[in-house]
Amino acid sequence: MTELSQAAIERIIKKAGAERVSADATETLTALMEDYGTFLAREAKKMSDHAGRKTLRGVDIRMAAEMFK
Amino acid sequence: MTELSQAAIERIIKKAGAERVSADATETLTALMEDYGTFLAREAKKMSDHAGRKTLRGVDIRMAAEMFK
Repeated sequence: MTELSQAAIERIIKKAGAERVSADATETLTALMEDYGTFLAREAKKMSDHAGRKTLRGVDIRMAAEMFK
Repeated sequence: MTELSQAAIERIIKKAGAERVSADATETLTALMEDYGTFLAREAKKMSDHAGRKTLRGVDIRMAAEMFK
């Protein structure tokens, strides 16, 4: 189901200053990050369709992020 | 620098419906997702400190996400 590696997310939490991290914390942040990425990717897909392209580009992601900040 | 795998992010973009994905799109979404995760992890660290714990838990992540939605 999830695409992101739990190890990577745990490293992100530790870099943020946590001494110890529960497995539950890692799973929770993984789900939130993945939901955020999926949301932006779907909006970016609409942007690439709108531009008449089959290739989703960085400009589409940036435009999607811009719309929701 | 980045912790997330580019392959995982490309899969997230393809699941969102994109036929083709530029490398630039994958890099851009990776950076945005990582920034989001780092932001939430830092806020969650403040929450665990506030609760007097050394272990960052799922409740800290959820509280951080709740504060910024």
